[in-house]
Amino acid sequence: MPSRDDAATRDAGDVLRRFRRRFVIADDDLIYLDGNSLGRLPRSTRARLRKVINEEWGGDLIRGWDGWIELARAAGDVLATGVLDARPGEVVVSDSTSVNLFKLAAAALDAQPGRTVIVTDDDNFPTDLYVLAGLASARGCELRVVKTDIDAGVSVDGVAAALDHDTALVSLSHVAYRSGAVADMPAITAAAHDSGAFVLWDLSHSAGSVPVPLRAAAADLAVGCTYKHLNAGPGAPAFLYVREDLQPRLRQPIWGWFGQRDQFEMAPSYDPVDGIERFLVGTPSVLGLSAVLEGARLTAEAGIGPVSAKARALTSYAVELADAWLAPLGFALASPRDPARRGAHVSLHHPQAWQACQALKDARVIPDFRTPDRLRLGFAPLYTRFVDVYDALARLRDIVASGSHVAYPAGRSRVT
Amino acid sequence: MPSRDDAATRDAGDVLRRFRRRFVIADDDLIYLDGNSLGRLPRSTRARLRKVINEEWGGDLIRGWDGWIELARAAGDVLATGVLDARPGEVVVSDSTSVNLFKLAAAALDAQPGRTVIVTDDDNFPTDLYVLAGLASARGCELRVVKTDIDAGVSVDGVAAALDHDTALVSLSHVAYRSGAVADMPAITAAAHDSGAFVLWDLSHSAGSVPVPLRAAAADLAVGCTYKHLNAGPGAPAFLYVREDLQPRLRQPIWGWFGQRDQFEMAPSYDPVDGIERFLVGTPSVLGLSAVLEGARLTAEAGIGPVSAKARALTSYAVELADAWLAPLGFALASPRDPARRGAHVSLHHPQAWQACQALKDARVIPDFRTPDRLRLGFAPLYTRFVDVYDALARLRDIVASGSHVAYPAGRSRVT
Repeated sequence: MPSRDDAATRDAGDVLRRFRRRFVIADDDLIYLDGNSLGRLPRSTRARLRKVINEEWGGDLIRGWDGWIELARAAGDVLATGVLDARPGEVVVSDSTSVNLFKLAAAALDAQPGRTVIVTDDDNFPTDLYVLAGLASARGCELRVVKTDIDAGVSVDGVAAALDHDTALVSLSHVAYRSGAVADMPAITAAAHDSGAFVLWDLSHSAGSVPVPLRAAAADLAVGCTYKHLNAGPGAPAFLYVREDLQPRLRQPIWGWFGQRDQFEMAPSYDPVDGIERFLVGTPSVLGLSAVLEGARLTAEAGIGPVSAKARALTSYAVELADAWLAPLGFALASPRDPARRGAHVSLHHPQAWQACQALKDARVIPDFRTPDRLRLGFAPLYTRFVDVYDALARLRDIVASGSHVAYPAGRSRVT
Repeated sequence: MPSRDDAATRDAGDVLRRFRRRFVIADDDLIYLDGNSLGRLPRSTRARLRKVINEEWGGDLIRGWDGWIELARAAGDVLATGVLDARPGEVVVSDSTSVNLFKLAAAALDAQPGRTVIVTDDDNFPTDLYVLAGLASARGCELRVVKTDIDAGVSVDGVAAALDHDTALVSLSHVAYRSGAVADMPAITAAAHDSGAFVLWDLSHSAGSVPVPLRAAAADLAVGCTYKHLNAGPGAPAFLYVREDLQPRLRQPIWGWFGQRDQFEMAPSYDPVDGIERFLVGTPSVLGLSAVLEGARLTAEAGIGPVSAKARALTSYAVELADAWLAPLGFALASPRDPARRGAHVSLHHPQAWQACQALKDARVIPDFRTPDRLRLGFAPLYTRFVDVYDALARLRDIVASGSHVAYPAGRSRVT
């Protein structure tokens, strides 16, 4: 029988428990299970943004660029070495995830003009599907969409069966946004390489939650978001990864001045720099880059090993409580049962998931709803406690057991 | 004979003088003449960013999106109606200027598949030239580069002579980044329309410094930067304008989820919304959008009429002082003499412009250097005083008259 004391015992043994204090937690009674949509504000980020705004922008003015010019690469290097399994110079922070996906997918297609197929899956994040469809449409390519079991995640065999010698690019999410299922990056990358295709991974839900074996898998390309488990704030710039040996071979389609050699020489012709900065475009958000740097440092300090171990422990605990309390109330797990195949969130089916989600918010728990009928619970290894999991699932149980959620109007999508 | 008292008298009569107090001015002795590279920090922006960071991100967490989702359009509407001559719903804030230029130029090319020429000029800002060259290269188009007299700015006749029935797009800067010369937007737009081409204006140096007659000129497309005269901070997101009747006809190439109808329905196929939001791509920077909104409001409050009148007065005063003091020392005006043809900055040629620029910084004046031999002086109508112009040019005169600048090493480009 689950007990809150047991949850508290787990918290006492949590090697990351001191990290919760590194975040601004304005309301300690609110249980926040949506850090995988928007991570919390780190205290160090609050301090750094104050300094960037008041001292650097307000005081140094244009001279601030002497330091700011290095930020995109500095933040990329922390991500490369502290969060992802990559080398310095393989990651840079820039633009949005969607724009970065466009740049790298286009670069991959341009590098293989004889190949005309892009492979993805129907559980990929919508913006990825749209960006790839736009590229396919513009270039007369085929977008081949593999069917994925939403709860189980993308299968290696399913992807492998879609590959052929016309395949230019395979683009998939590493951790699925609904189920949290982790794709087998090494196996899928190897299968793609066997057919001569590039692989472009979206790491939005995996950076800061699970190990990302870019180097071990010899992954070609990746993009990802920083405002989820990397806690860089709403709309903070995204990152992109290009394996070092590919950088000289690839050229992205948006030829902006931040990718230009000797940028301030203002030469009339585009001549991209060597290295990862050739994938930059326009002037980056300095506030955003500063927040990415701080957020990435915090995850790097905790270590992706302890972070992912705690993610598994939190999701396993949530599954255990859901089995005990929620399955009898009509909930079903919509995520892999194997903790090694999960990121840091778990989804539950329920026919009234939307109403349960609204009721839970009124009970001071913030989950997330995802179409068509999923309640998504995100656990942030740096600040979610086991007692939070216990309390949140207990409240959900009580709401649905009492039927109080049915008083909420039906619905299915909204920004939050 | 110029006198400082005369400068002070001009300040006393300045209808915008109260706006200087609306900015954070950490060091009142520093004369800042680079607000056209990076505008100062408005006090209202400092307060709003504090609130967005601490209360909205830190406290509201994901619920902040209930308000944030409107910011791109809200900031765009303030720009449309208070800064540019456009209608609500014709401007939105998004991405960087380079990315927006790419999106709109590509959309214009796609809308005219039979036309294969892009016209620009060799004095356009480098990133614009690079982006256009990239698009031309990818599509097998010709990039036809009109030669412009750098000091005089783009000529209507020069552009008109380059147009023909193969021209898909004309893309130019409204205010030239070196000389500050204002292009004749109505005449060039009319000439382009006569040949059936679209016109895409870069308003980076004109938004917040001169009237931008988008509606009067029936301009098709525009992009621009917010961190110069709109004071939105380093790397703040850019804006884009699409004339209302063109919006349904144009589709931009980066199909991201922020342009999707019923975005949070997460539908698998891209179906862009009606209206200006179809030109959005990924998750926007909330800190950036908030700063754009505040910065745009400040210019709108002052009014573009008074703002541009003061810009002319400041640049005219600078030209007057340069004629009296600097011409005898080897400086020559590298901007139009007619104040109606200038934005809010003035450039001066000098063979040792780089060294003079460095010496001036040590004399507590911040100008800018631009290749190949230009000292650029930017005057921000909201906070630059006539005494600042007087003091800056007097110090420049004294430096060059004494020859102290030649002690500085030669150079010609750097981030600041």
